[in-house]
Amino acid sequence: MARNAFYAQSGGVTAVINASAAGVIETARKHKKHIGKVYAGRNGIIGALTEDLIDTSRESVANIRALKNTPGGAFGSARYKLKGVEKGGHEYERLIEVFKAHDIGYFFYNGGNDSADTCLKVSQMSATLGYPIVAVHVPKTVDNDLPITDTCPGFGSVAKYVATSMMEAVLDVESMAKTSTKVFILEVMGRHAGWITAATGLASRRAAEGPHILLFPEVPWNEEAFLARVEATVRQCGYCAIGASEGLQDANGRFLSESGLKDAFGHAQLGGVAPMLAGLVQSKLKLKQHWAVADYLQRAARHIASKADLEQSYAVGKAAVEIAVKGMNSVMPTIVRISSRPYRWKIGVARLSDVANVEKKMPRDFITADGFHITQKCRNYLQPLIAGEAFPPFEGGLPKYVRLKNVPVRKKTGEYRP
Amino acid sequence: MARNAFYAQSGGVTAVINASAAGVIETARKHKKHIGKVYAGRNGIIGALTEDLIDTSRESVANIRALKNTPGGAFGSARYKLKGVEKGGHEYERLIEVFKAHDIGYFFYNGGNDSADTCLKVSQMSATLGYPIVAVHVPKTVDNDLPITDTCPGFGSVAKYVATSMMEAVLDVESMAKTSTKVFILEVMGRHAGWITAATGLASRRAAEGPHILLFPEVPWNEEAFLARVEATVRQCGYCAIGASEGLQDANGRFLSESGLKDAFGHAQLGGVAPMLAGLVQSKLKLKQHWAVADYLQRAARHIASKADLEQSYAVGKAAVEIAVKGMNSVMPTIVRISSRPYRWKIGVARLSDVANVEKKMPRDFITADGFHITQKCRNYLQPLIAGEAFPPFEGGLPKYVRLKNVPVRKKTGEYRP
Repeated sequence: MARNAFYAQSGGVTAVINASAAGVIETARKHKKHIGKVYAGRNGIIGALTEDLIDTSRESVANIRALKNTPGGAFGSARYKLKGVEKGGHEYERLIEVFKAHDIGYFFYNGGNDSADTCLKVSQMSATLGYPIVAVHVPKTVDNDLPITDTCPGFGSVAKYVATSMMEAVLDVESMAKTSTKVFILEVMGRHAGWITAATGLASRRAAEGPHILLFPEVPWNEEAFLARVEATVRQCGYCAIGASEGLQDANGRFLSESGLKDAFGHAQLGGVAPMLAGLVQSKLKLKQHWAVADYLQRAARHIASKADLEQSYAVGKAAVEIAVKGMNSVMPTIVRISSRPYRWKIGVARLSDVANVEKKMPRDFITADGFHITQKCRNYLQPLIAGEAFPPFEGGLPKYVRLKNVPVRKKTGEYRP
Repeated sequence: MARNAFYAQSGGVTAVINASAAGVIETARKHKKHIGKVYAGRNGIIGALTEDLIDTSRESVANIRALKNTPGGAFGSARYKLKGVEKGGHEYERLIEVFKAHDIGYFFYNGGNDSADTCLKVSQMSATLGYPIVAVHVPKTVDNDLPITDTCPGFGSVAKYVATSMMEAVLDVESMAKTSTKVFILEVMGRHAGWITAATGLASRRAAEGPHILLFPEVPWNEEAFLARVEATVRQCGYCAIGASEGLQDANGRFLSESGLKDAFGHAQLGGVAPMLAGLVQSKLKLKQHWAVADYLQRAARHIASKADLEQSYAVGKAAVEIAVKGMNSVMPTIVRISSRPYRWKIGVARLSDVANVEKKMPRDFITADGFHITQKCRNYLQPLIAGEAFPPFEGGLPKYVRLKNVPVRKKTGEYRP
């Protein structure tokens, strides 16, 4: 007998997370024998706690299809970590209460490391409380730091964006270096893992072509070595382009840009490495500098999404439903690379207990010996992930992005007091 | 009898300045009766002073055509203002010396305000020195601040980029505002004129949709009014998105970047309005903020260039040659708007004496009465300029940009000592 499904987006959104939503919803609509309606959490898991559910069955086929072209989180996402069992587990109990009230038997959670852990716990708690829920994690993170899966949906698009942007900025800087900016710094995301920083390196495809220096969070910050390399590069190439991770840190693991602020997960809020590096270049080397901080632009840039990434994002959403109706629980669909040239991949399945809270950093052999660039092995890994274009439709000069109706489901439980 | 032509790029490059170069070169190749070879200045006017000329006749038809798809300055550009007649005029004399040596009878200078002035002076000096030169300015500037012309080639593409980027970032921020960032700031270029800032406003097309606040250089900075508006917007919409000009200044014309404010991290500011505003929001309103600085990314973003802008950039290059062979001197081709809906335009001609050193700011009736957004009149003006897509070819996931051979012309004058 068919039961309803719950789908929620978690953590930082991406240019293609809505493609995963489309994959879940369209595939669920094809499995009416197992799945009734797909309810989405308004603002992610918060929507489950507050019983603020969205009835996706009220959305047209065209609008759900248009999710593939639309960045951001169509139902709202949340940075919210459920309070654990050690704090009484009341929030998990509340989830089960809401799921029961709406006959929800499937839990699809679309997120990164933290949400894989939450998804696992929902599954465990449902067993403990005797209310069966099939919990499947749908991978998503621009940070590309989930284990087991070859890549994380969302990463390929941000990689394509930063590589393209760096390539374009390099052409700009290079053409004006004679009389203007000598050092350009592009700051990109990646709190603990340098995958996005690595992707900026794809823009340099021949000798002396920028970016010349990449600053990874995996390589301890060394001011002296950095300044020496910048100076040598400017002398040799006339300019120096740098891709820098927001998560740049010293040998003691202290972030260069630590602001003292923490986000909801207790992570330090970063941002501002580029102006700091620029100040250093200006004061120590007396070289004219410019810097850019891509921030949300990079993870929202659906207009330059990777076709491969878009297809994978959809595929993991689709696979999550197919896996779930087969009864597999506490799992996550993964991307399995079959070959790099030509690029071929398939969907695999990982156990959530193997995924939750494990962070995949850049392997040492993806970084050159001097720590300042990517190796050919890294290029071979990254290259297929940015392959292919998937431009959204445009209207009046701007991308045509869909806004769903997001019709609420009538509440059935009493008022929730956290 | 045919004489050679000199072409140089001046000042900040754009996503489409090379399209103007293609327009000049391809059109000159069609007027062999009047124009021999087109020599380009390596690194702009510097190349003329140092007799470092590039022989564009050595480039293939395909490569010149590919310039239309390639951002940055293909021959190198320069931020260099020739020393005026009041300083002896030696640099102008040197230019004429080099032009004489290479039988250059046409001077095409591709730039903004400063270069229009230089172009005018070259024309005047050539008359004074009795060496006839036809000098035509080819307009280009992302700042959109040249007078007479309806728009400046280069602006439409940066406008499309910032509007698209803002629209995407807004979808991101809006979807996460419940538990994460409440205030997002995108800093864009435009030191004295708010045209690019205005273009970010195109992303908000319905009530309550961001960006909610635009900060123009034309509107004196008012901290109190700004903070009040941010707070009210977050209360009403759940988040607040802001487009801010790098040239934001107070009532005394003092740039914010000179105001001694600290950024979000308490560090002395290194040039960046966005982090300063973010710091203010954080400290005064205690709202979680994020900020992006697009910097060179915006003016190099050929991947999201405006088709209208690309066509106009090519057209002014083409028109410059056509005007020149007709013998018109000290002029600049302009864009004349015939109608906005449907968008129709044609090429006009302006006298350089009417263009040089005149700066076109945003008209007051393009800005709302409260100073925080654009009016419908402004939208009507901007809308056609971002119309149409002109994606470059891609290869291996990245745009395929051309690099010319840039073969030097054999020197004929002695060594140049400035």
